[in-house]
Formats: sequence, structure tokens, C-alpha cells
Amino acid sequence: MAENGSAGAARWHISRLPSETPLAAAGEQSIRPVLSRVISFVDASGPRSVLMLGGGDPTASACFRTAPEAEQAIVDALLSRKYNGYSPNVGVLPARRAIAEYLSRDLPYKVSADDVYLTSGCVQAIEVMVSILAQPGSNILLPRPGFPLYEGRTTFSCLEARHFDLMPDRGWEVDLEAVEALADENTAAMVVINPGNPCGSVYSRDHLAKIAETARKLGIIVIADEVYDHLTFGNTPFIPMGVFGDIVPVITLGSISKRWLVPGWRLGWIATCDPKGVLKEAKVHQSLQNYINITSDPATFIQGAVPQIIANTKEDYFKKIIDLLRNCADICYNKIKEIRGITCPHKPEGSMFVMVKLDLACLDGIHDDEDFCCRLAKEDSVILLPGSALGMKDWIRIAFATDPTGLEDALERIKSFCKRHGKVEA
Amino acid sequence: MAENGSAGAARWHISRLPSETPLAAAGEQSIRPVLSRVISFVDASGPRSVLMLGGGDPTASACFRTAPEAEQAIVDALLSRKYNGYSPNVGVLPARRAIAEYLSRDLPYKVSADDVYLTSGCVQAIEVMVSILAQPGSNILLPRPGFPLYEGRTTFSCLEARHFDLMPDRGWEVDLEAVEALADENTAAMVVINPGNPCGSVYSRDHLAKIAETARKLGIIVIADEVYDHLTFGNTPFIPMGVFGDIVPVITLGSISKRWLVPGWRLGWIATCDPKGVLKEAKVHQSLQNYINITSDPATFIQGAVPQIIANTKEDYFKKIIDLLRNCADICYNKIKEIRGITCPHKPEGSMFVMVKLDLACLDGIHDDEDFCCRLAKEDSVILLPGSALGMKDWIRIAFATDPTGLEDALERIKSFCKRHGKVEA
Ligand SMILES: Cc1ncc(COP(=O)(O)O)c(C=O)c1O
Ligand SMILES: Cc1ncc(COP(=O)(O)O)c(C=O)c1O
Repeated sequence: MAENGSAGAARWHISRLPSETPLAAAGEQSIRPVLSRVISFVDASGPRSVLMLGGGDPTASACFRTAPEAEQAIVDALLSRKYNGYSPNVGVLPARRAIAEYLSRDLPYKVSADDVYLTSGCVQAIEVMVSILAQPGSNILLPRPGFPLYEGRTTFSCLEARHFDLMPDRGWEVDLEAVEALADENTAAMVVINPGNPCGSVYSRDHLAKIAETARKLGIIVIADEVYDHLTFGNTPFIPMGVFGDIVPVITLGSISKRWLVPGWRLGWIATCDPKGVLKEAKVHQSLQNYINITSDPATFIQGAVPQIIANTKEDYFKKIIDLLRNCADICYNKIKEIRGITCPHKPEGSMFVMVKLDLACLDGIHDDEDFCCRLAKEDSVILLPGSALGMKDWIRIAFATDPTGLEDALERIKSFCKRHGKVEA
Repeated sequence: MAENGSAGAARWHISRLPSETPLAAAGEQSIRPVLSRVISFVDASGPRSVLMLGGGDPTASACFRTAPEAEQAIVDALLSRKYNGYSPNVGVLPARRAIAEYLSRDLPYKVSADDVYLTSGCVQAIEVMVSILAQPGSNILLPRPGFPLYEGRTTFSCLEARHFDLMPDRGWEVDLEAVEALADENTAAMVVINPGNPCGSVYSRDHLAKIAETARKLGIIVIADEVYDHLTFGNTPFIPMGVFGDIVPVITLGSISKRWLVPGWRLGWIATCDPKGVLKEAKVHQSLQNYINITSDPATFIQGAVPQIIANTKEDYFKKIIDLLRNCADICYNKIKEIRGITCPHKPEGSMFVMVKLDLACLDGIHDDEDFCCRLAKEDSVILLPGSALGMKDWIRIAFATDPTGLEDALERIKSFCKRHGKVEA
């Protein structure tokens, strides 16, 4: 009944649902709304192209194309007509087996198909893990800066998030003293993202071992977000956290989104790296089963393609992507050195991101990181992500996986923006 | 530390997480664990093939094949390389627009792309709706028998489920008096599944109008699960609940899983059918946005294929499937009449299922529906779903969408099972 020009929502109970809910807060703890705000400042009628260095999706650039073998694997799986039906809730066996073998290559023990659960991207892997750990009174330790979906899901699940810092002057290593200070008997797990988003960090074997020892001492398991596995291009090689599975039970989260440059395919996994069987004894597998019984699965034919995707993708493809990322990281790091107003404490060695610190003292009339990004979007059509979206006010995340010419152009625009807004030196 | 032969889980906090949780209870409220239990009774070394009439996935039968145009649409979308990246959280615009037009065909007003949110199958649509309605103290009205994922998600979300009966002797219509008795000011919504799983019912325009009027009187919105839309083969045509959107705000859930026979593609939707803008005023769209910000999406290239899937699938294909389903329903209904021990109160007119009542008084030594199904699995390798999984003890659900020869064979086996276990008549 449209009374007084209103739709008359008041007569419906649904209008009485409170709007100040964990869900409302959680929905804001996401990169998407922040990026949308920044993008809304772009002058669409302006003469210059918009350069997007804000998100984590390189596939808009022609050079970041997936392997043709991976596409063929999808077509073959689809046309086989074996995968039009529902999959088992844990995922189809050949895919779980292929992922188990893929992960086992880099481990001192074997992960089995039974340890692997397929998910709709690493996003759903995070959803599952946070949901099964959420119990009244329990808490989880998250890195700062980090990946805001962890915060969003913990807020929604009423799990308490406690943050430990990553240390910019020490290659973004985990502040293990902070971890020790934060943990108590209600701490269910700590999250480690390596290679790191948003810092581009890659942890050494030594640092990973220290994390494992600390977690063991505290009695907390490690959730290892390795969605950027193998995307390393510096001096530090990628070492999976699962290598330390005999010290601490590790739950590894991953996906084909990043290494295969197909984030839209939504194929990820949860793998228990637990040679001592601690998680099994603690009935974690039962919880995983319970949760995936009431959630959706990745598309079955994409699952069906996984063994061929892994088996058929050539070394050449991986090498080409790594070379490209290294080149982009170099361009980015070297150019930033020339820019007065932002500094980069650590050259990125992995993933697709780097964090830079705003030097507000050098910049005239820029209030903070969000102000910087919005003005840069408006004046120069370059999109960056304000660090406050990641828990780091007055820092900025640059996503450098884009075609090198566009990247150079963007950095040139950032340079001239900083110059235009630079304080005259005393 | 494997002390005393144990993995030593006790030293890890995670082993202290309680196992009696809403999650554990929710995981059990699913068809999957019940079906697995029934299947475990099959004698794998037996001479006869296993006939699966337990699940809701007809794609195992060669005759229930999707349209080649749909497969081609997927291949085209994939190979266009436009859809390897992340999609917007609400879904790609052309797909939302195509679904809006598809739904609008059967409505007296237009649904717009902004009213449509893409989900990973109707399963995720249910997840989203239950999650956004869950508030402390609120409740939702669910049909009995129904689709257990609603129960699973409400249990997990700590939303109270209240059940109204569907009436077998009245074509499984909603008991609207029960609805009125159950609703109170904390009732957020009622769920209507039409065409019906598990009953094979199709509601008349008249009954749908009565549901709308009742909901309006009570001030509760309707969630219309129309995952079986257009799968009707009796005298009653499919009419979407959204037709009554000016009486009551309707949120329609759907997917391509059933009509296109591709449940493994995981492409569904939520559509607000709300010509008066009540849901908008009540900020339901904001809640939908908040929730989908923290969940995974359907694969982008499958989204990208949706406009072609809808545009290119020929009437012939739909007609062939409907004819097949009608034939299966006839075979099933006629054969059941011959079987002493089970009765079917209402001939199915839609979906892929029928509910039959066990007449335990005619059966010797069969305790209940689960016992019936487990023994039938063991002795005759036919899989049916015990009604208790759907809230209807001593009823059984038969999924008849399978190749007609197999269906006849299965019903013949059920007949001989009932005969073997039949009580000698006095
Ligand atoms: C650290 C981290 N974890 C998880 C994800 C989600 O990955 P997916 O695309 O596989 O869902 C991302 C995506 O950017 C990420 O950066
Ligand atoms: C009533 C009902 N709703 C929702 C679903 C889930 O559908 P989808 O395969 O699109 O996730 C089903 C599946 O069987 C169903 O029967």
C-alpha cells in the first residue's frame, strides 16, 4: 500500500530487522566497497584512460593470460558430459587426488586426496575455515596488514579477531612477540599469508620455522593462505607452511586463481597438512564435512578439469608469468624511489602487490591514504587501494600485475601527482 | 607429539572446540548424510545394478542431457577470454539482465537487472537469504515436507524454524491456518517451494493468491523457491509467485540446474519481485550486497554464458524433457498403484519427485521409512530417500527422473520387495 508516497515498508516485519548487525559491519570489511568509492572519483569524461592498480585481478591485461592447456582442459571436461551433475560435497576424487599430489611435491610427506576439500575459490576456503572455528568466546590471530575477507568473515561469525603486525623494516615478517602476547587458551588459530598480499613478501624457511615453533608453543594451529603459491620472483623461494606440519598442524588454503590467472574460475581448496593426525583426532574433518554439507560447490566440470590443468600446463607458461611479474615489480620499485611522497620499505619478491608508505609531511593538503587515492583517481585516473582498507592507515597498496607500459604510465602519473601536491622544501 | 600412541591433539586448543554445535546439527540436516547411510547398505558384490532414485540429479541418465546450445554457450564464453577474471559481486550485468528478462516474461510487471543477484546455484541463494534474515529472536516459516538445506542453514544461523504442513489429501497445498497460527511479529518470511520438492505438486493461481493474501495479512514476505520453474507436466501450469508481487514482496530463488539439467554448473539467482519497492525501502538490497561481499561467486564464464543459454535453447529441448518427465511420472504413479505397502496420495504434476506413504501395517518387520530404504538398498539395490530426512516419517521420496527402463525395473524391484515383506492378509 503506497501510503503517503512511501512503499509502506513499515507494515512488513522485514522492515523491523535491525540494520546495525554483524552482517552490515562485515559487508564493509571488504576491498570492494572501498575500491568502488575510490573509482567513483574518476572523471569518466576525462581524456585519459583509467589505470587500475587497485584490485587483485591481472586478467584485464592481455599479457596476463592463462595457459591454453588450462582452457582446453575445461572444454574437454565440459564436452565429456561426465561433469554436468552435482559433485560430492568434498569435490570429485580425481581433482582432490591431483591437488594432493601437486601439494605433496613440495612436502616431506604425502598429502592424500582425503586431506583435500574443493572450494569455490580461496574465498570459500576462508569462509569455511572461519565458520568452523567460530565458537562463542574463541578468537583468531590475523596479520595486519592482511586480506580483509578474514575480518569480514570473523565479524559476521562473531569470532574475535586479534591482530599481530607484520614488520615493514624486517621484510614484513610476523611480529612473533605480538603473537605470543595476543594468544590465550581461546585462540583457535593464526593466519599466515605467504607469499603475501598486500606486502609482496616471501618468508624464508627460517622465519616459517619460527612461526611453526611459536604456534606449537602456544598450542594454536596455522591457517596458511597460499593462494599466491609459487608466484615468487626474488631471492627467496616459495616454501609451503605445510613443510612444518610435524611441528604444528597446518591447514593450507589455495586456488588456481593466481598461478593460473583464472580468478573467475572459482576453484580453490582446503588441505590439511597434518602428518601427525592432530586435526583428525580433534575432529576437524567432521566439522569441514558438516559445513560443506550446507554450502555450494565449485562447478563440477571445472573440478573435472583440474587433473589436466595441473598435468598439462607447461613450465614455459609459469616461467613467462614469473618473468613478467619480476619485470613489473622492478619497474614499480625503481620508479617509486624517484617519487617524493611515497616510500617502499621492502622490494616485493612475490604475489602481485607492494605496500608503500605515504609521507604526508611532504604532501600539501592530502589528509590521509583515502584522500590520496580519491584525489589521484579524480585528477589522474589511476586507481590504488588505500591501506586503511587493509588495516594500515596512510599506506597504499599497489597491484603491479598489469602490462608494463600501462604500469609505467601509472607510476609516471603518480609521480606528477605527488609533485603537484608536494610541499615546497624549506 | 605422539604420546601413548595418540596424535596428542589435547595439547592443541582446537581440540577443545565443542562438538555439540549448531554447525554439527546443521551438517546432519542435509540429504547427503541420509542418502550415504542408505547407499552403504547396498551389496556391492551383488549381481544387480544399483538403481538410484534417491537424489535430485537426473544427469546420470543419458536421456536427461542438457541442450547442446547450452554447452556451446559455455565454450564460447570461455574461449572469448572475456570472463577469466573476477565478476562484480552481484554478477555480470548481461547475465543479470538476461535473467531479469527471462523472469519478466511471466510477470505482469518488469523485473530489472538491479533486482537480480547471481549465486552459486540455488543452494547459495538459500544460504544468502537465510543468512540475511537471521537476527536474534527472529523466525522463518518452512514447509513440511521440504528441502532440508533450509533447516540446515537456519540451524547454523541460529534462526528459529517453524514448520507448517503441506496437505497430502489436498494436492500438498500449504496449510494456511497453520501459517497464521505460527507467525508472530518476529517472523521474517515464509518459504514456498513450487513446483514442489519433494511432493511433485504444482500450485494453482488460486492457491498462490491465497498464500499471498495470508502473508500480506501477517506482514511477512514470501521466499519463492522456483528452482523447478517450468518443469510441469500435469494440468496445472507453472505460475511464478512473483505474479502476486503487488500483494506481497516476493524474493524468487532459481537456477539453471533443473530446467537445463546442469546442476553441476552452479548458476543460480535471487530476484526481488517487488513492484511496490517494499524491499528496497526495508534495505534488503543493502543486506544482500553486504552478504555477497563476503561470499564466493559462480564462475564468471558460466555467468557470461547465461544470455546465450537462455536465448539459444530451443523449445524442442524443453518439450522433450517435459515429455520425458511426464512419461516417468506416469510410469511411477501407475506402478505404485499395484504395490501393496506404499500409496501415493497425489499424482505428481511437476519437479522430479513424488512422496509415497508407507503402510507399515501391511509390511512385516519393517520398522520405519529408514528401515524400509536400507533394506531395499541391501536386498534389491534400489535407493530411495527416507521421508524422515524431509520431516515426514514413514513416507518415502522417489526421484523418478531417470531412464524409463531403469525406472520400471526399480519399481518392479520395489514391488517384489513389498511382496516378500508383505503381511499375509487375514
Ligand atoms: C590473500 C588472499 N587470500 C584469498 C584470496 C581469494 O582467492 P580466490 O580468488 O581463489 O578466491 C585472495 C584474492 O585476492 C587473496 O589475496
Ligand atoms: C527445492 C530446492 N531448492 C534448491 C535446490 C538447489 O538447487 P541448485 O542445484 O540450483 O543449487 C534444490 C536442489 O535439489 C531443491 O530441490
